[in-house]
Amino acid sequence: MAQKPSIPKGTRDFGPEEMAKRNYIFNTIKDVYALYGFQQIETPAMETLQTLMGKYGEEGDKLLFKILNSGDYLNKVTDEELSERNPLHLASKLCEKGLRYDLTVPFARYVVMHREELQLPFKRYQIQPVWRADRPQKGRYREFYQCDADVVGSDSLLNEVELMQIVDTVFTKFGVRVQIKINNRKILTGIAEVIGEADKIVDITVAIDKLDKIGLDNVNAELKADGISDEAIEKLQPIISLEGTNEDKLNTIAKVLEGSDVGLKGVEETKFILDTLKVTGLNNEIQLDLTLARGLNYYTGAIFEVKALDTPMGSITGGGRYDNLTGIFGMPGLSGVGISFGADRIYDVLNALDLYPKEAVNATQVLFINFGEKETAYCLPFVAKARKAGIRTEIFPDKAKMKKQMGYANAKNIPYVVLAGENEINEGKLMLKDMQTGEQTLITIDELIATVSK
Amino acid sequence: MAQKPSIPKGTRDFGPEEMAKRNYIFNTIKDVYALYGFQQIETPAMETLQTLMGKYGEEGDKLLFKILNSGDYLNKVTDEELSERNPLHLASKLCEKGLRYDLTVPFARYVVMHREELQLPFKRYQIQPVWRADRPQKGRYREFYQCDADVVGSDSLLNEVELMQIVDTVFTKFGVRVQIKINNRKILTGIAEVIGEADKIVDITVAIDKLDKIGLDNVNAELKADGISDEAIEKLQPIISLEGTNEDKLNTIAKVLEGSDVGLKGVEETKFILDTLKVTGLNNEIQLDLTLARGLNYYTGAIFEVKALDTPMGSITGGGRYDNLTGIFGMPGLSGVGISFGADRIYDVLNALDLYPKEAVNATQVLFINFGEKETAYCLPFVAKARKAGIRTEIFPDKAKMKKQMGYANAKNIPYVVLAGENEINEGKLMLKDMQTGEQTLITIDELIATVSK
Repeated sequence: MAQKPSIPKGTRDFGPEEMAKRNYIFNTIKDVYALYGFQQIETPAMETLQTLMGKYGEEGDKLLFKILNSGDYLNKVTDEELSERNPLHLASKLCEKGLRYDLTVPFARYVVMHREELQLPFKRYQIQPVWRADRPQKGRYREFYQCDADVVGSDSLLNEVELMQIVDTVFTKFGVRVQIKINNRKILTGIAEVIGEADKIVDITVAIDKLDKIGLDNVNAELKADGISDEAIEKLQPIISLEGTNEDKLNTIAKVLEGSDVGLKGVEETKFILDTLKVTGLNNEIQLDLTLARGLNYYTGAIFEVKALDTPMGSITGGGRYDNLTGIFGMPGLSGVGISFGADRIYDVLNALDLYPKEAVNATQVLFINFGEKETAYCLPFVAKARKAGIRTEIFPDKAKMKKQMGYANAKNIPYVVLAGENEINEGKLMLKDMQTGEQTLITIDELIATVSK
Repeated sequence: MAQKPSIPKGTRDFGPEEMAKRNYIFNTIKDVYALYGFQQIETPAMETLQTLMGKYGEEGDKLLFKILNSGDYLNKVTDEELSERNPLHLASKLCEKGLRYDLTVPFARYVVMHREELQLPFKRYQIQPVWRADRPQKGRYREFYQCDADVVGSDSLLNEVELMQIVDTVFTKFGVRVQIKINNRKILTGIAEVIGEADKIVDITVAIDKLDKIGLDNVNAELKADGISDEAIEKLQPIISLEGTNEDKLNTIAKVLEGSDVGLKGVEETKFILDTLKVTGLNNEIQLDLTLARGLNYYTGAIFEVKALDTPMGSITGGGRYDNLTGIFGMPGLSGVGISFGADRIYDVLNALDLYPKEAVNATQVLFINFGEKETAYCLPFVAKARKAGIRTEIFPDKAKMKKQMGYANAKNIPYVVLAGENEINEGKLMLKDMQTGEQTLITIDELIATVSK
């Protein structure tokens, strides 16, 4: 019985060309992470639901993929529980495991479980898929890769500086011009304090974070709807609309925040990061943006976000400092700072700007045409020699029609083809065809290796 | 409320050193696959249960991890079905998706779904985790990586030859001496035919496959218990105990199989593969072993298996030819041949023989000691310069005690440390300490780069 096969909605197959491009992205990021002393770890796809539940809010709990217990998964469920049909309660009886939802919670769990073996500060990176039962839509998938680096166990702002350098280096390698935006949660807290609405900090930052999208009037309307006083909104106006260089902004906001210790601490931190980055140098612009908020409940210090300059796309990288990653697992007081590259969006940006280097996508370099058993026996030692020289080489396995074999070379974008028939065998040579120019040259295997390696 | 975290049984965290070793294994295999023109694909972790069920036998179906439908997963289940408490039936209502169990079925599904875009023969490799709800035990995990390469759409035995070359090249690169065993399903079919037990081929091959483990007497006892006639068992003896070179064995078995067309075809195929491998050359020995059976129901031609010579470990690589991979998904007549490296066992072999190259495991090359803000400001441009030269460099982020910073360098096996205090700043130089010899040298950054790059 033949089934018409399909894959679960929101998931994707990656074919050879997509994989080559994705590998180029991941390898570039990995190399830069390693250049800064970050080390890779991997955690299991499945975590216990105890580890996952309650970490992503009520909405997040619903979006976890849960795994049915194996064996007789019903034996812990009473008849009464079955007949009650409470999906949430019943799921907690049917399932003990779920698929990881991000890399941050598994990392926190990892740090706590392996605390004895870890050398602090621990600089780790992790590139693995995560799963979310989100409604699939354009650009949003149920399985996607995250690409995170974090330092835990160090309060030093040098870590923030290095993460900005990493961002700058990665996008320089990609050839993508970006703007890095930076802000600090302490500045936002200070602002809420000085306008007299300290307890409304979440509402305030959620609203001003939308400035780019909905404009100033709508931000103010939202603030009013949130119950922020007219006076506070009035005080907020010059802060939201702050213009000028980073220095100008820092000077102005330092005056505004004079009454807030935490606010001034945020200014000082930001000044250190920006000043130090001047010493090390950046290829891309970094801009202080006081409206940048990003997942406020989570971050406690610097926050940053990256956008591509030459193609419209949301945030392609982001991160920040948090203070209590591992507290929920019984290990309080460990500060950390991290960054996450959005691989799927970076993939789209590099496609849109046509920035994949040719050698990242090309695979096989030479195809030997198969003219039959005798010719193949002649070619095989040469094929082996080319491979020994590091040249990605194929010999067409079947004696198929010439058109089919050349079509194969074209479809796989193989730049060189070797034809070896009776003449070549008699001369002990090979006919090398350059697939781009069509030019054919009778050469030795050593000449072939030299030509193709160029 | 602090939870003591854990991970699901049968799963593993991989820390930095394990990851470095695993990456060394995967990257070596990937490079060799690419050298032979294989291209990487990835498929989703989740497949529909329709794709997965019924492909791995009744036992396999039970070992699939099933994923609870998201949202109101109970709405398709009647009260009656709930009260019946039939785990298998209920699971089919609660779950539509499962985690992939191997890479072969997803690959077959991929080939059928993407048939229009594929250029045949399609040479793909795939390195991804698979999940099985097996009882965890030493060396058996519920999540583990498979590392497969297959060619589909070509009947040519050159593919078998190239897979053997790949095996040989990979283990040569690892520095592991191996024995490659080869057999052919058609020879086994022929043997069953000539001893007059054609319909007992499964029982026969299952029994003789155990020769290594249980010895000849027990094999014969098992054959008898399976209902094989004494006469047939008698005829089987010289075949099982066949000794000598591959040529001797092929000559003998060709005579034995004179009455069986399929058997002689198997001999001819094996002869071609072995003869062609003599032309290309192998570093490791390949041995014809007529007792090798491996998942007989699946394979239809050549079968192979690899064992390490210098450390006891089961099969570390295996594969073979199959004839109807995609038939179950409505695409009949596509032949394929594949191979699978057992990454976890190879990891253990390389550990046992201490064969990891030092540079595969070492990460950071230089650590700059942090003596405080002024010294750090002095060092940062040098740190940036070292990284620009491709040297994996860290600067300790905090001004911690010397002992702690040196301890960090030791724990991470960092070979060089840089000390730069007032003297070095005055001279515009850096003090480079070789952590192995303890030797300290006052040098410029260019000299440092030259020394560390060596």
